[in-house]
Amino acid sequence: MITMTKQRELSGELLTLESMSTREISAVLQEAERFASGKSWRAEKEIFVANLFFEPSTRTRFSFEVAEKQLGLQVLSFTGENSSVQKGESLLDTVKTFEAIGANVLVIRHPKNEYYEEIGKNLSIPIINAGDGSGHHPTQSLLDLLTIQQEFSSFRGLNVIIAGDLRHSRVARSNADVLTRLGAKVKVAGPKEWMTGYADTYEHVSLDEALSYADVVMLLRIQHERHDGEMTWTKNDYHQQYGLTIERESQMKRNAIILHPAPVNRGVELASELVECSRSRIFKQMKNGVAVRKAVLKRALEIEKFLF
Amino acid sequence: MITMTKQRELSGELLTLESMSTREISAVLQEAERFASGKSWRAEKEIFVANLFFEPSTRTRFSFEVAEKQLGLQVLSFTGENSSVQKGESLLDTVKTFEAIGANVLVIRHPKNEYYEEIGKNLSIPIINAGDGSGHHPTQSLLDLLTIQQEFSSFRGLNVIIAGDLRHSRVARSNADVLTRLGAKVKVAGPKEWMTGYADTYEHVSLDEALSYADVVMLLRIQHERHDGEMTWTKNDYHQQYGLTIERESQMKRNAIILHPAPVNRGVELASELVECSRSRIFKQMKNGVAVRKAVLKRALEIEKFLF
Amino acid sequence: MITMTKQRELSGELLTLESMSTREISAVLQEAERFASGKSWRAEKEIFVANLFFEPSTRTRFSFEVAEKQLGLQVLSFTGENSSVQKGESLLDTVKTFEAIGANVLVIRHPKNEYYEEIGKNLSIPIINAGDGSGHHPTQSLLDLLTIQQEFSSFRGLNVIIAGDLRHSRVARSNADVLTRLGAKVKVAGPKEWMTGYADTYEHVSLDEALSYADVVMLLRIQHERHDGEMTWTKNDYHQQYGLTIERESQMKRNAIILHPAPVNRGVELASELVECSRSRIFKQMKNGVAVRKAVLKRALEIEKFLF
Repeated sequence: MITMTKQRELSGELLTLESMSTREISAVLQEAERFASGKSWRAEKEIFVANLFFEPSTRTRFSFEVAEKQLGLQVLSFTGENSSVQKGESLLDTVKTFEAIGANVLVIRHPKNEYYEEIGKNLSIPIINAGDGSGHHPTQSLLDLLTIQQEFSSFRGLNVIIAGDLRHSRVARSNADVLTRLGAKVKVAGPKEWMTGYADTYEHVSLDEALSYADVVMLLRIQHERHDGEMTWTKNDYHQQYGLTIERESQMKRNAIILHPAPVNRGVELASELVECSRSRIFKQMKNGVAVRKAVLKRALEIEKFLF
Repeated sequence: MITMTKQRELSGELLTLESMSTREISAVLQEAERFASGKSWRAEKEIFVANLFFEPSTRTRFSFEVAEKQLGLQVLSFTGENSSVQKGESLLDTVKTFEAIGANVLVIRHPKNEYYEEIGKNLSIPIINAGDGSGHHPTQSLLDLLTIQQEFSSFRGLNVIIAGDLRHSRVARSNADVLTRLGAKVKVAGPKEWMTGYADTYEHVSLDEALSYADVVMLLRIQHERHDGEMTWTKNDYHQQYGLTIERESQMKRNAIILHPAPVNRGVELASELVECSRSRIFKQMKNGVAVRKAVLKRALEIEKFLF
Repeated sequence: MITMTKQRELSGELLTLESMSTREISAVLQEAERFASGKSWRAEKEIFVANLFFEPSTRTRFSFEVAEKQLGLQVLSFTGENSSVQKGESLLDTVKTFEAIGANVLVIRHPKNEYYEEIGKNLSIPIINAGDGSGHHPTQSLLDLLTIQQEFSSFRGLNVIIAGDLRHSRVARSNADVLTRLGAKVKVAGPKEWMTGYADTYEHVSLDEALSYADVVMLLRIQHERHDGEMTWTKNDYHQQYGLTIERESQMKRNAIILHPAPVNRGVELASELVECSRSRIFKQMKNGVAVRKAVLKRALEIEKFLF
C-alpha cells in the first residue's frame, strides 16, 4: 500500500535561471522594475511563506522577509538551529512539515548543491531557491540583471567582466549564461586557478586590460568559508593583483558601473573607499533585491492560483 | 512588606490532559474539528502570545505560530539562546518579564518536567504547555485524538497499540490514559526494558500478534537525545525486532492506521517507505496540530475573557 | 569619484540621554505616560523597524518588539548569529544593508561602546540605541525616570541612591546625570573599587546610612559577564555587605521604592523575597519600558516625517 506523491506540472517554483526562457526572465524583470518604481500590490488572501535558511544569511533572508511583508504575506522564519534538525530530522521531513502545517510557498537556502532535486517531487507547494551550496542563486542573478537593465536599458552588446572567485560563486555561472543569452559579451577575470569548469568556456582577460571597454565590472565575493585555507595570496596581494583598486577604478569607462553581491571583503575584492563610490551599485543591488523577490513571489502565487 | 501574587481561579491554561474531564476534551476536539474543516475565526482585539521554546522544536513551534497568526494574534517568538537566560535569568523571571511587557498567553516548552508548577502560581496569564521534559505534551495528545476521531468517529472499543519508547515519551502516558477514559482498549508494545512505571499498568503485547486486531498503531519516536547512549540495539536490530517494517505493515487490518508524532527516525520505528503510505496519518497529524492549537488558544482567550 | 554620505541634520535618533535637553526628556516622559495610561496610536503608513541585537537580551528586545507591534510597525528581528556577521561582515555594512532593503528605523544593541559613532554619519535613517557596551542605554534610563515620576510626580529634591556595580553599568551614569539635571539629589553606594571615574563625582555613602532618607534605591545588576572573574566576594558576602537584604528593606522610608533594571541576581543585589515586594517597581519598570519605547519610536517617526 505504498504510494508516491505525484510530480507537479505547472509550477511557480524558481530553482535556477538556466531553466527559464529569456522571455520569462524579461517578464520577471519587467515586474520587478514596476515594484522598484513604487508599484504596490498585496495578496488578498492569507498566504504563508516559510523562509528556511540552513546557512547564515542577512541580506537574502531579510530581503525576502521585507518583500513578503510588503506583499502582505505571513512569514515563518526558520533558521536550522533550535529546530528538530538538531534531532536529526532530514531536509525532506522538514519541508514536508512546513507544507503540512500550512505553508503555501517555501524559500530555501541550503548548503547542499541542488538540494531541491530530492525534495521537489515530494512537495505540492513551490520552492523558491535562495541559494544552494555553490550551485545557484537565481534571485541574486535577477537583481544583478535588474540593476544592469536600469542603467543601460538593454543587455545587447554590453561588455560585462565577471571578476574573482568564479569557482565558488553561485551566481557567476548563472549570470554568465543568462547575460550571454540576453546578448551581452561576457568575459572573466581573476586567478587562473579559479577559471576551471564552466568559467573556462568564457574568454579569460586581465582586469587591467578589460577596464578600457567594460561597461559592467561584476566582482565576486571571495568565499573564505568555502576555501578551507587553500588561498595562496595575502589579502593585500590579492587586492593588488586581482582586486578593484582605487587606481584601477580611475581607469574605468565614463559610465561603467561596479556590481558586487556583498558582503564585501573590504580591501580585498574592492578598495574600501569604493564601496559607496559613484560607480558602485552595491546598495542599489540590495534595494533591487527586494523588488525582484516581490516579482518572484507574486509570480509564484499567480501561477499556483493561490489568490483566487 | 512582602506580598505574594494570588493563585488564579478560572483559567484558560492547558498543562496536562489528565486534569481535563472527557467532556472538556470532547469540546476541544469538536472545536478543533471545526477548524480542520475550514472554520475561520479571528480575535477582534490585539492579543499577544509569547512562544517560549527552551528546547529545539520545528513542528510544535511553527504549528503554534501558524495557528496564532491564522487567529490574528500577535506572536513573540523566544528561543532561549540570545536571551537573558544566557545571563543566568531564571524561568520564573523570564515568564514574569513576558507578562510585564504585555503577553496575554504563554506557550512554553521546557526540558524540566512540570516546569509549570513553580511558575504558574506567580502568573496572572495562562500557560499552554507545549511539552515539559518527559512529562506531558497535551496538544500533541489532542492532535492524535483528533486524527483518530476523524477516522473512526468514536473511540469506544477501538484497539490502540502504543509501541516503542514509552519511558521517554511525553505523549504515551497521556494518550494511554485519555484513550482509556474515552473507551478505547489500549495495549503497549516494545522492548520490555521500557515498560516500566505507568506503562506496566497496560497489557504488554508483541507487535506481531497485535497487528491482527489493532485499529491504530501509534508509534513513538526513539528519543536518542534522552538516552545517553544506553541503547543496546543497532538501528536495524531495533527496526527488525520492534519497528513497523514493510512486512509488518502488510499484516495490518484493512482500515487500520499508523500514527507517529514525528520527527521519524526513518528505518528505525518505521520503514522509510511507510512514512507516506496510505495508512500513514503522519502528515495529517501535523495538519491537525494547527487546528487543535487554534481550538486551545481560542479556549484560553474565551475563558480568560481577553476578547471583551 | 569617491563621495561620502552627508551627515543628517534633524534626526529622530536617540543615542544618549546626555545629548537631550531636560525639556526634550520631559516631553518624551509625558508622551510615555500617555501610552502607559492607555493611549492608542498607530502609524498609518507601512514602516519597517529593524531590531539588531548583537548581544543577548530578552527584556529590551521583546519590549521594543511589543512597542513596535502595538504601534502597527513591521518588525525585522536580527540577532547576529545565523547572519553574514559570521562571514566577517562589518557593523557598518550590516546596517547599510538594512537601510538598503527598506528599514526606516534601526534599534541597535552592540557590545562596543559608542558603536554609533562610526556608523551614524553613513546612514540616512535614525538609530535608537538599545545599549552600547558599558556606555549608554537611554530607553532604560527613560523607563527608570518614568517609574520615579509616576511615584513622586516631580524629581525636585528627591533622594536617589544608585547602588552596586557602577563601573560596568550602562544606565548608572546616564541616570545620575539626568536625575541631577532634573533636580534630584543623587548619591552612590557600593564597593569602593567600583566608584571610579564619573561615579567618583557623586557623594559615596553606605547603603545602611542612606536608607533613612532615600526615596529611591536604584540597584544595579552585577554584570558577571563583564567581570572576567575578578569579583572578590562570594555572592552571599556581597549580599550581606552591599545588597538589599530583607533586614535593610525594613529600614527604608515609608514610601520609598526599589528599582532594578533586571535580570536580578536573586540573593545578590536583592533578596529573592523582595523582587515582588510592595516597594519593588521591577515589573512596573518593564511595563513602563514598553510605553517609553513607544514614545521614542513615535518621536523618531514624527521627526523623520515618515508618516506624511
